[in-house]
Amino acid sequence: MVTRALLCSWCVAGGGASHLALRTATRLASPRIAHLCTRAVVARPPQGGSHEQQQQQGQGQAKVQAAQEQKQKLNEGVTPRSQDFSKWYLDVIAWAELADYGPVRGTMVIRPYGYAIWEFIQSWLDAKFKETGHSNMYFPQLIPYSFIEKEASHVEGFSPELALVTIGGGKELEEKLVVRPTSETIVNHMFAQWVQSHRDLPLLVNQWANVTRWEMRTRPFIRTLEFLWQEGHTAHATKQEAEEEALQMIEVYRTFAVDQAAIPVVVGRKSKLETFAGAVHTYTIEAMMGDRKALQAGTSHNLGQNFARAFETKFTDENGASQYVWQTSWGMSTRMIGGIIMTHGDDRGLILPPKVAPIQVVIVPIWKSSEEKESVLGGALAVEKSLKAASIRVKLDASEQKTPGWKFNHWEMKGVPLRVEIGPRDITSGSVVTVRRDFSGKASKEFGVSLAGLDVHIRKRLEEIQDNLLARALTFQDENIVDVESYLELKAAVSEGKWGRGHWAGSDLDEVTVKEETGATIRCFPFNQPEASKPCFMTGKSANEVAIFAKSY
Amino acid sequence: MVTRALLCSWCVAGGGASHLALRTATRLASPRIAHLCTRAVVARPPQGGSHEQQQQQGQGQAKVQAAQEQKQKLNEGVTPRSQDFSKWYLDVIAWAELADYGPVRGTMVIRPYGYAIWEFIQSWLDAKFKETGHSNMYFPQLIPYSFIEKEASHVEGFSPELALVTIGGGKELEEKLVVRPTSETIVNHMFAQWVQSHRDLPLLVNQWANVTRWEMRTRPFIRTLEFLWQEGHTAHATKQEAEEEALQMIEVYRTFAVDQAAIPVVVGRKSKLETFAGAVHTYTIEAMMGDRKALQAGTSHNLGQNFARAFETKFTDENGASQYVWQTSWGMSTRMIGGIIMTHGDDRGLILPPKVAPIQVVIVPIWKSSEEKESVLGGALAVEKSLKAASIRVKLDASEQKTPGWKFNHWEMKGVPLRVEIGPRDITSGSVVTVRRDFSGKASKEFGVSLAGLDVHIRKRLEEIQDNLLARALTFQDENIVDVESYLELKAAVSEGKWGRGHWAGSDLDEVTVKEETGATIRCFPFNQPEASKPCFMTGKSANEVAIFAKSY
Repeated sequence: MVTRALLCSWCVAGGGASHLALRTATRLASPRIAHLCTRAVVARPPQGGSHEQQQQQGQGQAKVQAAQEQKQKLNEGVTPRSQDFSKWYLDVIAWAELADYGPVRGTMVIRPYGYAIWEFIQSWLDAKFKETGHSNMYFPQLIPYSFIEKEASHVEGFSPELALVTIGGGKELEEKLVVRPTSETIVNHMFAQWVQSHRDLPLLVNQWANVTRWEMRTRPFIRTLEFLWQEGHTAHATKQEAEEEALQMIEVYRTFAVDQAAIPVVVGRKSKLETFAGAVHTYTIEAMMGDRKALQAGTSHNLGQNFARAFETKFTDENGASQYVWQTSWGMSTRMIGGIIMTHGDDRGLILPPKVAPIQVVIVPIWKSSEEKESVLGGALAVEKSLKAASIRVKLDASEQKTPGWKFNHWEMKGVPLRVEIGPRDITSGSVVTVRRDFSGKASKEFGVSLAGLDVHIRKRLEEIQDNLLARALTFQDENIVDVESYLELKAAVSEGKWGRGHWAGSDLDEVTVKEETGATIRCFPFNQPEASKPCFMTGKSANEVAIFAKSY
Repeated sequence: MVTRALLCSWCVAGGGASHLALRTATRLASPRIAHLCTRAVVARPPQGGSHEQQQQQGQGQAKVQAAQEQKQKLNEGVTPRSQDFSKWYLDVIAWAELADYGPVRGTMVIRPYGYAIWEFIQSWLDAKFKETGHSNMYFPQLIPYSFIEKEASHVEGFSPELALVTIGGGKELEEKLVVRPTSETIVNHMFAQWVQSHRDLPLLVNQWANVTRWEMRTRPFIRTLEFLWQEGHTAHATKQEAEEEALQMIEVYRTFAVDQAAIPVVVGRKSKLETFAGAVHTYTIEAMMGDRKALQAGTSHNLGQNFARAFETKFTDENGASQYVWQTSWGMSTRMIGGIIMTHGDDRGLILPPKVAPIQVVIVPIWKSSEEKESVLGGALAVEKSLKAASIRVKLDASEQKTPGWKFNHWEMKGVPLRVEIGPRDITSGSVVTVRRDFSGKASKEFGVSLAGLDVHIRKRLEEIQDNLLARALTFQDENIVDVESYLELKAAVSEGKWGRGHWAGSDLDEVTVKEETGATIRCFPFNQPEASKPCFMTGKSANEVAIFAKSY
């Protein structure tokens, strides 16, 4: 068991460059642990949560010193983003306790703080899906292997990444079973039984599920062997309806990204090469991460009649004629959590947009004497109560093992959007200090914020933080998209880490050439297009559309 | 593809006695379908849902005749419960569109109407788990085979039912991976890394997940190869805390069953033989189904230190000593939906307790002429609006392809607790007719229910229906539990289909004998015990406790 624990599956998978501090960190305290990785050994990540009840009275000087050590260790724990983006990302995930590594290579345990973000994503999307007429349901995850083979491009796209169940109940199975990588095939198998007439259409369903893809290069939240997502599946009587549905759902994803996650995205259509295996068109939202790599954050596919033909999903139209249905599928996953981390975080750690933050406000009370404690804690509890009553997600960190300074760092690292500090003088003056996570130093602080109407004040600040995070990310995105008119210009843009946008009428082969020579792929043909045609920057042919090229996750 | 569809996986699995009408039913309309099973061929189940917009004007006589045919077919569709409970159960699932069969033997597709019930179960339990201090998280479903082997009784209990992934990404894996049948092993692998000190305890988590068990005799909702559930996992510093947690969670399940699902349950402790593989004690809620078989509807396990020892899940206590943690796990699953069906349903189909019903009230407007239509439909829409505003889950069935009579049957079969009928005379008198699903004939109807305050009236009726369903089930349960004082009496009780309750101090072997000779097992030692000791009905030894014996699902 201990031997197993020594393996750091992500180091292996990720090429050894970066790995998780937590793996070393949590083990250090225990003599039974050694770790093969070379990352400098750090302290165990701070334990938030349920331990505040502990009544360990610190003793002045010793307490301060301990706190300083802890602070130093905390800084050691999270590599500054400006220093190494990739390490920073993994460190933040470990120290903010968003996720940990599962025992099987490339699998991930989503910890409560990370899962709570997923619950906000779920609850917003789920409501939106229902508003737009979809019902939830559940399809089995084990799919006969023969199903995957029915749609030619689908099997080509997915067969390299399948996990196969070959033994069940102690016996070799007659037919291998695929652990679902996505559900188009089994959905069609069922739709073919449920759909008979045009009156059965449209069929609009969604499922919340886990999917398994045998990825070789994995990264927590971004690409894991198993991940959580929702997959919508619909069947329609006409081509146009399916197209409208696919566009409607990518717009739902765009709205979520922009309005909830404060992530600006470019919405567009994938190139033929990048289209989902089995789809006619794939629509995508592409987000620029802090390292300027693109993240495909949600996709919606117009499947045309491809799966319907493969599975004989037919209906009788109003004239009595038998027709194949027109279909869509669309999904957003736990990858979005990785997108939130990599869009907003800074050297100090995570920054969460208030709308998806499990904790929107942390209250840190500050006292020295026990008389002070009584009045300060009383005041802090009153603030907590009033904010809760205003439906603000608030945490009072009244633990006595940690100093206020340690707590400031800790909750900043965990990305809590706003901090409320209450000390003895604040109690006297009936006010508090508030500190925004999205600014630094003096600009982040407001002194003497009156307790009267504090909830209104805080709600306003949370809205401002949400808006500021979006505006900042949008500026960053705009600054890093370069219009290119030649392949040389594209190469220059990509080599600077930027996105290149230019007119494109190249072939699939040209697209592959760009990828091989620059590492960039077509992220999409944005919906937002210039009016005039121009020559393709690669081939010189007249091109109606611009494409965006970028390196991506 | 068509050939595949001919297989009725449940007939095979269930011994051929009963099978799903839907499989034959949905296919009948299509000439490409034939079915090997012998069940009399019936019409396709009615399609509810999104088709009401269709504007097919029926033509008097023909419409009535068509409706009569449909009604007849509907009655054909669902076998009366009193005639064949098992067929009735499968027919209800098919015709009420709760679930369908997946392509892999023993798997189940949960359809929107069934899944909506699951969503109510989820939302109530999830809130309760959070109230009691638990956080949601997610563990990977692929578990190294070696993990399962670490806890001796766990591997013994689960190894016959494992699904194993042996191929990933096209390659044979070095170590087989288990598709999670339950997560105690992987949970402990992670807990061992997260827990160091007594300050890290208690650790209180839950996950909503799918699990896979290679069951041989399957039955929709009750026992399927894959099912949905929640599994709570906790770690504590003391034995007593773990025991309190296990008891707290079985009480949560009891409360759900009784207060939400209107299912009376016997709460108790499992016998050693029936205890979860790896647990010290298993607590259970046992419900009596309409055929008087017992259904284990939720379990909570005190795991003691068994998994902690196997996985070295240790903490340093307040005195600096290293200790194994004390643990619990507990789960409730989609099986509960089967419990709801089999507790409340009747010859006419499903009866859903209002608290878990996706549709609490269906409004059926009745008109003949087009003038009538206008005023009736206007009135029905107004009623729908007012009930929605009162947060009552209401559906207006204004479709014109079906007659009111057909709709009555249809929504009764789907178990909607209350029907509101509105005809031209009701519009004139400012009233409606209401019909309760839990009564029949005259007793079910109320005429001239005033539109003024209708929402209050309906809310009251829904509460009465909820209470009545519980009271009725409780009476049924009490009537069918027999106190026994000898093995002969137990045999007699069991052979009459009843539950036998008697003092028990038998050995494991005695318990096996009872099972082999009567088919009944110890469902539990109820928490609610008589005060006095008595001789064991089997051995004559002094027994402190009564046990309940019954045949079970």
